[in-house]
Amino acid sequence: MPEFLELLPPGKALSRLMSHLAQRTEAEEIATEQAFGRVTATRVLAPHPLPAFPRTTVDGYAVRAADTFGASDSLPAYLNLIGEVPMGAEAGFRLEPGQCAMIHTGGMLPSGADAVVMIEHTQAAAAGEVELLRAAAIGENVLKVGEDVAQGEEVIQAGTRLRPAEIGGLMALGITRLMVARLPRVGILSSGDEVVPPEVTPGPGQVRDVNAYTLSALVEAAGGLAVRYGIIPDNQADMMAAAERSLHECDLVVITAGSSASTRDLTALVINELGEPGVLVHGVNVRPGKPTILAVCGGKAVIGLPGNPVSALVIAGLFVVPVIEFCLGVRQVRPRPAVWARLAINLPSQAGREDWFPVRLVPAVDGYRAEPVFGKSNLIFHLAQADGLVRIPADANGLAAGELVEVFFI
Amino acid sequence: MPEFLELLPPGKALSRLMSHLAQRTEAEEIATEQAFGRVTATRVLAPHPLPAFPRTTVDGYAVRAADTFGASDSLPAYLNLIGEVPMGAEAGFRLEPGQCAMIHTGGMLPSGADAVVMIEHTQAAAAGEVELLRAAAIGENVLKVGEDVAQGEEVIQAGTRLRPAEIGGLMALGITRLMVARLPRVGILSSGDEVVPPEVTPGPGQVRDVNAYTLSALVEAAGGLAVRYGIIPDNQADMMAAAERSLHECDLVVITAGSSASTRDLTALVINELGEPGVLVHGVNVRPGKPTILAVCGGKAVIGLPGNPVSALVIAGLFVVPVIEFCLGVRQVRPRPAVWARLAINLPSQAGREDWFPVRLVPAVDGYRAEPVFGKSNLIFHLAQADGLVRIPADANGLAAGELVEVFFI
Repeated sequence: MPEFLELLPPGKALSRLMSHLAQRTEAEEIATEQAFGRVTATRVLAPHPLPAFPRTTVDGYAVRAADTFGASDSLPAYLNLIGEVPMGAEAGFRLEPGQCAMIHTGGMLPSGADAVVMIEHTQAAAAGEVELLRAAAIGENVLKVGEDVAQGEEVIQAGTRLRPAEIGGLMALGITRLMVARLPRVGILSSGDEVVPPEVTPGPGQVRDVNAYTLSALVEAAGGLAVRYGIIPDNQADMMAAAERSLHECDLVVITAGSSASTRDLTALVINELGEPGVLVHGVNVRPGKPTILAVCGGKAVIGLPGNPVSALVIAGLFVVPVIEFCLGVRQVRPRPAVWARLAINLPSQAGREDWFPVRLVPAVDGYRAEPVFGKSNLIFHLAQADGLVRIPADANGLAAGELVEVFFI
Repeated sequence: MPEFLELLPPGKALSRLMSHLAQRTEAEEIATEQAFGRVTATRVLAPHPLPAFPRTTVDGYAVRAADTFGASDSLPAYLNLIGEVPMGAEAGFRLEPGQCAMIHTGGMLPSGADAVVMIEHTQAAAAGEVELLRAAAIGENVLKVGEDVAQGEEVIQAGTRLRPAEIGGLMALGITRLMVARLPRVGILSSGDEVVPPEVTPGPGQVRDVNAYTLSALVEAAGGLAVRYGIIPDNQADMMAAAERSLHECDLVVITAGSSASTRDLTALVINELGEPGVLVHGVNVRPGKPTILAVCGGKAVIGLPGNPVSALVIAGLFVVPVIEFCLGVRQVRPRPAVWARLAINLPSQAGREDWFPVRLVPAVDGYRAEPVFGKSNLIFHLAQADGLVRIPADANGLAAGELVEVFFI
C-alpha cells in the first residue's frame, strides 16, 4: 500500500487496526501490594462478607432498639450499663432487655444489641445507668454483615486497572496475591541513518535518538514494558532481521522512522513482509503525524511512527496506548481527564483533518488560558514548553479565540 | 489542641501546614532513561544548540535562494544538479551559484545553500538539471542552528517533573544523566487495636489493614516512596517509639488512626510530643475527613488521617500529595485534570464544609452523567465502584441535578 493514497481519519484507522488484533498477554500471579496500576486477569469474588460482623459507625451505646422507643429529651429512656465493648474483640457478654453497653466506632455489636445511640444523644445518669435522649431504629448507626460486600459477590471485574481503592478492597478481603495481565512488551526500533544514540556526540548531519526514549516513557505510563532494540541501519536486511526478532519477543512493535521519505518507505516495505494481514493503514489524517503506518502481523500490532518527535508522541497516544490496553485486556477505558481552558488566539485548521496543538496553560481570572506554543516543524523543546495538547476535531475549520477547549496532558 | 475545637477549611489548613515545612529531599544523580516522573534538582542548560546544523524540514532541493528569485510555473528557474546530500553526513560539496542538490527531510544543508525548494514544486528537466517552479526565500524550509534551543539556554527549570517530552529533549542534548530530587520517604503507620495485617484471618471484631496499602499506592502515584511500619499497638509508648523512628527515617510521616475516638486522641498526643511546633490543625471542614491532624515536627510533616478508608484517601489527596510535592521541590504544580459530567441528581451539602462524593461516570448523549455512589460510612468497595470524586465547595449548599461538575480520578 503506497504512502498517502488514502488518509484515514484516526478513529477509523484505530478501528481497522483493532479489528485485526489477537495478541493479549497471559496472566501472572503477583502480590497485591505490588499490583497498583496493573490489570486484573480474572474477576475477583469476595471470599467472605464485608463487614464480617455487625459494626457500629459511631461512638455511643449499643442497645436493643425496642428499649429506646419513644425516648426523647423530655422523656428519656434509662438503661443499665453492663460494660464496654473492647476494640477488636467480642464483647464477652450478651445484651438483655433493659441493658446497654458502651461501644466505639468500628466496634462489634454485642449479641442481643441491634442499634447504637450516639454518645451526643445520651447523658450520664445514676451509677451504672445511661439516660438516652433519642430513640434508635433497628439497625441505626450499624453496618450490617455484608453491607459493603456479600460473600461470593464479584467485587472486581476482569480487565480492571487497579487503583488505590481496589488495592485497599483486596486487602480488606485478605486477597494478598492475585492474577494480573503480564506487562505487554513493546519493542521499540529506531531507524534513520542520521540518528545516533544519546551518549554519542553527533557528527555533522547527525542527531541523537529522541523517540526511543519519549516512547519508552509513554509506554511505561500506559502500563507496558518498553524493550529498546536500538538504532537499526537503513537497509532492508537489517530492518527485517530486527523487526522479526522484536515481533517474536514482544507483544507489540513500534518502529520510528527516520525523517526522510526513503526510510519511511523502507519501514512500510519491511512491515508488510512480517506477516498477514500486514499494513492496514498508511497515512492518517492527523497533524502532526500523517506518515503513520498501522499494521497487524500474525495477530500483533506493528506501528510505524513518523520520525518527528512531536508527531511520534501524538500518534503513539492515539494508537500505541489503545493497543497496550488491548493487550492488557482493559475492559473499561475511562474517559481521558483534561483541563478546560479558554483559547488565547484563533487556531486555524483544515476541515477533514484532526489537529493537535501544544499549548501552555496560563492562570486567568476565570480559570486558565491556553496559549499555543508555535514552532517550525514541531521541535522537541517546543513540546517540553507546553503543558498539554489541544485537539481540533476533523469536522472543524479551527477553534476561535475565547473558546473553551480541553487540554490533555502528555 | 483538643479535637474539633476549630474546624479549618482545607485551603487554610494546607497553608498553615506548608508555612512550617522545611524538609526537602536532597539531590541524587540518575540515568535520564530512568528519570520519567522524577523531579529535576537543578536547572538544565543546553550544552549546544539544537539543531546543531542547518536542517531541511522537507524533501526537495537545496538551493541558493537568490538563484530562485522570480521562479514560477510559467517562468521556471533552471539549476544544475550537482549531487545528493547523504543522511547523517555532510554533503561533501559546496553549492555555487546556479547549482542545487537533492536533499531529504532532516538532511544537513550543504555549505553555500540557504533554502530548500519542496520536491512538489520542482520538475525533472534535462539530465543534470532541475526545473524550479517556485522561488524560495532565504531560510525557507530550513531549521536554523539553535532554532529549537540556543547554546546555554535554560531548557528545563529546577523542580520540573519530567514527562516524555523532557526525557526526549534531554536525550537530544546528550544529557544521559542528571540530578533529580531523591524520592521522599513517606512513613506509613497504622493503628487501631481492631486492625490486623491483610494476611491474617481477622477474629471477631477485627478488620484487616486497608489504609496502609491504599496510601502506599497514592504515595507512589505522587512520586514518593512508601515505607510501611505496620500496625502499632494502641498505647502511648509503642506509638511514640514507632512515630519517632519513622520521623527519623522518613521525610514525612502519615499515621492512620483506628476508627475509635480514643485512638485518634492518642495519635494527637503522640504527634504533639514529636517535635516543635507540633499539631497545627486538628479537625478540617471536609467530609469525609473531619478528624484530620496536620502537624510539623522539626521541619517534617506528620499527618494523622482518619481511619475510614475513603476519608483517608480524600484527605491524603488534599494534604499528603502537596507535602510530597514540596519535598520534591516541584516548582510548577499543574492544575488537576478532570472529566466534566452532568450531575444525575441533587447533592445536598452543608454550607461552610467542603464535600467529596464518589461518583460513577455513565456515558450520555452530551458527554457523561455523574451518578453518586451512596453508601453508609464510606466503605472501601463503594469507592472502588466509583470512577472519581466530585467536590462540593465550602461556599455551596450543594449541587443541582444537571449541573456540570468536574470528576477527579483517584
